[in-house]
Amino acid sequence: MTASPFSGIDHVGIVVRDVDASLPYYLDTLGMTFIGEGRNVTANVRLIYLDAGNMTVQLVCPYGPGPAATFLEEHGEGLNHVCFRVESIPETLALLAPGQDAPISVGGFDKRTCFLPNRPNGLIMELVEMSEAEAARD
Amino acid sequence: MTASPFSGIDHVGIVVRDVDASLPYYLDTLGMTFIGEGRNVTANVRLIYLDAGNMTVQLVCPYGPGPAATFLEEHGEGLNHVCFRVESIPETLALLAPGQDAPISVGGFDKRTCFLPNRPNGLIMELVEMSEAEAARD
Repeated sequence: MTASPFSGIDHVGIVVRDVDASLPYYLDTLGMTFIGEGRNVTANVRLIYLDAGNMTVQLVCPYGPGPAATFLEEHGEGLNHVCFRVESIPETLALLAPGQDAPISVGGFDKRTCFLPNRPNGLIMELVEMSEAEAARD
Repeated sequence: MTASPFSGIDHVGIVVRDVDASLPYYLDTLGMTFIGEGRNVTANVRLIYLDAGNMTVQLVCPYGPGPAATFLEEHGEGLNHVCFRVESIPETLALLAPGQDAPISVGGFDKRTCFLPNRPNGLIMELVEMSEAEAARD
C-alpha cells in the first residue's frame, strides 16, 4: 500500500452465539491454532484469537448489550468486521471520519480499539492501535 | 496451523453495489493498491483485487443473478466471505461438506473456485484451488 493510514489488517472478526460450541470447528476441522483470548468489557464481548496461517481470525461472542449483540440479533452469526492496524486511532479517525464521534475502548491483548462510526459500502471497520515495531514483530 | 486443509486465507470479499463508485475509497482513502480484476461468469460478478498490505481484499460486484446479488438484496453491501486456499477443491469438500453438492466455477485469475454449501456459524467460506508452489510465490 502507498500512503495508507494502515500498517495492515490485524484480523477479521466472526460473530458467534456460543464460542465454546463453535471453537472446535475452527480448531479441529479448519485446523486453526489458538493464539489467545480476551474480553472487551465496553462492548460486552468475549474474544478468541485464532491463527489461520497467514492471518488472524477473531471469534466475537457477545455476553451483553453492544454492537456484536445487535449484529447477532439483526443478521445472525457470521463474518462481521475487518480490523486494521494503525499507529494512532485519533489521527486515523480524523482522516476517515472527520468530526464524528467514536468511542475508544480496550480490546484483546489490552490494545486500544475503536470502530469507525461510518460504514462505507456497509463495511464494519475496526481500528487497533499498534506501533510499527509491534506490528513488525507479529 | 496444524493438519489444516488450507494453505492460508486468499482474500476476504466485500459485496458492493457499484464497484466503480466504491473503488476510489479503497484506493485513495484506505491506500490499498490495485492488483487486478476479473469476472466469475457463473456467479455473474465482477471482481476487483486489492492489496491491503498483508492480505488481499476482493470487491465483488454482481451484474446478474447469483449468490452475491442475493446477498446484496438481503443484507445490503458489506463484508461477505472468507476465501481459503486449498490444493484440491474436491478433497476439501469431501472433508468439510461430505456428500453435499457444490458447483465449482472459474473465478479471478482463472482459478477454480467453490463456495462451501454449509455455513458453520453463518460464515460464507469460499475455496480457491492453488498449488503450494503458487501460494508460496504470492
